[in-house]
Amino acid sequence: MSCGYKLLSLEEAKAMNPEVVFAALPHKASAEACAKFADQSVVIDLSADFRSKTPENYKAAYGLDWSFPELQDKAVYGLTEWYRQDIQGAKLIANPGCFPTSTLIPLLPLLKAGMVQGPAIINSMTGVSGAGKKAVTNLLYVERDENSGAYNPGTKHRHQKEIFQEANLVANLESILFTPHLIPLKRGMISTQVLNIAGGAQEADFHQIFLQLQEENPFVFYTQGSLPQSRNVQGTNRIDLSFQVEGDKVMLFSAIDNLMKGASGEAVQNMNVIFGLDETTGLRLQGEV
Amino acid sequence: MSCGYKLLSLEEAKAMNPEVVFAALPHKASAEACAKFADQSVVIDLSADFRSKTPENYKAAYGLDWSFPELQDKAVYGLTEWYRQDIQGAKLIANPGCFPTSTLIPLLPLLKAGMVQGPAIINSMTGVSGAGKKAVTNLLYVERDENSGAYNPGTKHRHQKEIFQEANLVANLESILFTPHLIPLKRGMISTQVLNIAGGAQEADFHQIFLQLQEENPFVFYTQGSLPQSRNVQGTNRIDLSFQVEGDKVMLFSAIDNLMKGASGEAVQNMNVIFGLDETTGLRLQGEV
Amino acid sequence: MSCGYKLLSLEEAKAMNPEVVFAALPHKASAEACAKFADQSVVIDLSADFRSKTPENYKAAYGLDWSFPELQDKAVYGLTEWYRQDIQGAKLIANPGCFPTSTLIPLLPLLKAGMVQGPAIINSMTGVSGAGKKAVTNLLYVERDENSGAYNPGTKHRHQKEIFQEANLVANLESILFTPHLIPLKRGMISTQVLNIAGGAQEADFHQIFLQLQEENPFVFYTQGSLPQSRNVQGTNRIDLSFQVEGDKVMLFSAIDNLMKGASGEAVQNMNVIFGLDETTGLRLQGEV
Amino acid sequence: MSCGYKLLSLEEAKAMNPEVVFAALPHKASAEACAKFADQSVVIDLSADFRSKTPENYKAAYGLDWSFPELQDKAVYGLTEWYRQDIQGAKLIANPGCFPTSTLIPLLPLLKAGMVQGPAIINSMTGVSGAGKKAVTNLLYVERDENSGAYNPGTKHRHQKEIFQEANLVANLESILFTPHLIPLKRGMISTQVLNIAGGAQEADFHQIFLQLQEENPFVFYTQGSLPQSRNVQGTNRIDLSFQVEGDKVMLFSAIDNLMKGASGEAVQNMNVIFGLDETTGLRLQGEV
Repeated sequence: MSCGYKLLSLEEAKAMNPEVVFAALPHKASAEACAKFADQSVVIDLSADFRSKTPENYKAAYGLDWSFPELQDKAVYGLTEWYRQDIQGAKLIANPGCFPTSTLIPLLPLLKAGMVQGPAIINSMTGVSGAGKKAVTNLLYVERDENSGAYNPGTKHRHQKEIFQEANLVANLESILFTPHLIPLKRGMISTQVLNIAGGAQEADFHQIFLQLQEENPFVFYTQGSLPQSRNVQGTNRIDLSFQVEGDKVMLFSAIDNLMKGASGEAVQNMNVIFGLDETTGLRLQGEV
Repeated sequence: MSCGYKLLSLEEAKAMNPEVVFAALPHKASAEACAKFADQSVVIDLSADFRSKTPENYKAAYGLDWSFPELQDKAVYGLTEWYRQDIQGAKLIANPGCFPTSTLIPLLPLLKAGMVQGPAIINSMTGVSGAGKKAVTNLLYVERDENSGAYNPGTKHRHQKEIFQEANLVANLESILFTPHLIPLKRGMISTQVLNIAGGAQEADFHQIFLQLQEENPFVFYTQGSLPQSRNVQGTNRIDLSFQVEGDKVMLFSAIDNLMKGASGEAVQNMNVIFGLDETTGLRLQGEV
Repeated sequence: MSCGYKLLSLEEAKAMNPEVVFAALPHKASAEACAKFADQSVVIDLSADFRSKTPENYKAAYGLDWSFPELQDKAVYGLTEWYRQDIQGAKLIANPGCFPTSTLIPLLPLLKAGMVQGPAIINSMTGVSGAGKKAVTNLLYVERDENSGAYNPGTKHRHQKEIFQEANLVANLESILFTPHLIPLKRGMISTQVLNIAGGAQEADFHQIFLQLQEENPFVFYTQGSLPQSRNVQGTNRIDLSFQVEGDKVMLFSAIDNLMKGASGEAVQNMNVIFGLDETTGLRLQGEV
Repeated sequence: MSCGYKLLSLEEAKAMNPEVVFAALPHKASAEACAKFADQSVVIDLSADFRSKTPENYKAAYGLDWSFPELQDKAVYGLTEWYRQDIQGAKLIANPGCFPTSTLIPLLPLLKAGMVQGPAIINSMTGVSGAGKKAVTNLLYVERDENSGAYNPGTKHRHQKEIFQEANLVANLESILFTPHLIPLKRGMISTQVLNIAGGAQEADFHQIFLQLQEENPFVFYTQGSLPQSRNVQGTNRIDLSFQVEGDKVMLFSAIDNLMKGASGEAVQNMNVIFGLDETTGLRLQGEV
């Protein structure tokens, strides 16, 4: 058995004139790498550097100025299920964060249809790989095993700002309180959103939207009659979705694998769309369990 | 090393005329056991049989009629931090459920003070021991390890009704959407509640209430400046609490060990109160980590 | 997204005249299913029913008589790395157990070469999926999480007999003490074997055998300079191997995914060999981490 | 709730003239701290600095010379079950390592009685806390969850040398192959040892030794009829033991909590012995499950 790869310098990589470049560096460093390839390759950036629509948003979330303002308006936000048409012709993709992916896919179509309005109360539970592989005490096995807790609640997490920006591009949403929780999963993310129903939408209307989402998107699976479970999507690029109407409110449930649909899987999905490949090429629809 | 105990029939136990009886049977069976001892012993019931204030509430949650209506109004709801004075003279304790314990302790004082109002959006994450030790497929290691998901959301879980009943005894709360999530913890429970701020309450007011809660209750720990983590309370009877104000809303965070403060620890705490013992007797305040 | 399958009765399945049948039933029931297809299909049996070379061995391990003695000598033991040539023309495969797979692949070539002799001291650690999905108390999350222990040690486990039988078909091995340990993994198995070195074999000889094993077998990965880790093979059909010489003894280390190379992956591998497909068809060589 | 402690400099601590000092620093640093208190306090060192009987042994395991040769022969190896009488009058305790504790307690009495002889094949499985809380990649949750593997096998682990030294103080043991395995437990350690039976010892003789071990030692629990499970000792200072005779070999099984009986619990146990307290003071005999 052998599996080979070769580490290249950016210059060596550039000399190879790649058709597509995936950048998965920390923010700022990622923008710098992307900029080197922007004139010759399709660039899919997994960092947050090209996700903000305004320099203010970026500064608020990351404390930095835009490094390459001229590239910002070329970037398409890579939420495939929402921006598929824009992605088809894109040269630079701002691949979404994991929390935004898990929450926006069910939320945006409902906002667009005028069926929900804020305030949105969003709670997400994420596996530890969401925090990367930095060797820090808080991410040690002995700290995370048999442990759970909220962190950066309300409006503190950078992804709250990303969700808020994207939602408000679709419809005015009064406010979003977003609270992530770190739980002892290796990979996996579930989200539970509560919104106010608008426009007299009925249960059947939500059902219709979710059916349509499933029909139009190969990775959306509508778990009618049951609730999304993170295990079912582990190792896949799927997002499992369902909803429940409670009086004047609707609850939205979703599950993704934060490393796949929440990061690298979505990046490959975007590549597939850009290059006209079948959208599921190289990506799994079925978990292994 | 030896540790002995002897299994007795209810009749043998009754003949011993015990000062205190802990009943930890399934509902209905628990009421029947409690009734046998109600005239001679202090009875602490860990089931839900004596928690409902009306037969309608009980029927709605458990599908049954009250077996012993005459005992129901003798029962004191054993949320020690809220009903300590009533518990002191009680002969029959309805020990609270784990989710109600984790949510009501921070919520009730704020309701009482008129500082919050509904709707309440409550999300809880519980370890697997919360579901007991029944040998069912859904609780197998291979099903729960590396898996997470919501269940019985909104108003479906029996504890939603228990929380709603108890909250409304204090103040009218428009509605409660309560969503439990099963996560791969052996024991531990965290809750994140979002409520509307009422009466012009300020951050300093919440701070004051939480300080006072800590001061008056040996098992309440106010984690100022950080958020409750389930690990810190594992094996203890503690509830760790904090809050965060976000505009016109307040978020309440709590962590308990569902098997201790959420069940047997709270039962022992109530026994201590009833018999005039130090409230912390036999209960741990510090986890082992 | 959709994924369909249809449950058939054995008779319906038989009427479809399948080219290959995988039987994954409990022992005895599996033999009965296999027998129905033995005259028309290639049958790959994942149970133990066709693994024993004598009725005495089967009875000793499973307490039963052979149900279909006439089929027994048609069965080929499906340890692909060792019996590949026999498997090529086989009609009935007795797919090996997980512990035998993880231990025999490094052991048999050394026995054949006269480089090791007994007694063999084998210790294996297995994830909980090795015990299946039966709803029994001992396999609950609350029992297995944060718990580990040996079970059926020495000569008690059925797989000790399977390992002993297969090893002694190659060379006389004085004795095998095999001790499995249940550890809190979902899937994965590691084995550590200690044997006496025979025939003056040197470290370089072991190295040579392991290199050759890797070269001749697409799923064997020789982790020179490091020790096999279960994570690296999770989700794959790989077996990772290494060894260490200590004086007159040699230690053999291996890791497999008990559900893949230890069960269904190996079954597919055998199908590939029988039908002349590339041996790796449909099977993964790289884990996801 | 409040729990206070104060960090002191070594000089401040020395000025308080403590009756007992626990040193839990890395080796070398620990010896230096211990030396400061050796003339005035009982010192219990949890590091390896005073465990070696010769400077050669220490150098072989830790690569260093003895810092305080004059203190070395004052140190008593704190394996309470074996050296209780020496510990009673000791001023300096070399608290044993976790692997030696888990293996020597069942092994030494058998060696002393001439009932076993080498070679000893020892396999241990340890939880991740055994490696401490260093922020290194290999100890991250994402590396250790769902992962297992052997490390430092045979004679490579420092504790192999400690076990070998202590065993050979009792009887000549040909060789020890000791292989630790890292498994996804937070805390807990199980060991499986295989030795040759000597002197015609019978099963009843082993039974007798284990019964006696249990009788004479408050933390030894002989799990007759079942095998030790790490969960049963979690949070306690217990060591659970059993054995199984297989032909001319005997298998020894044990389970400890590596942080308790394998480290700090044993240190407290030694303090209790030195100061004439009940040996179980402050230590738990029963886990929480």
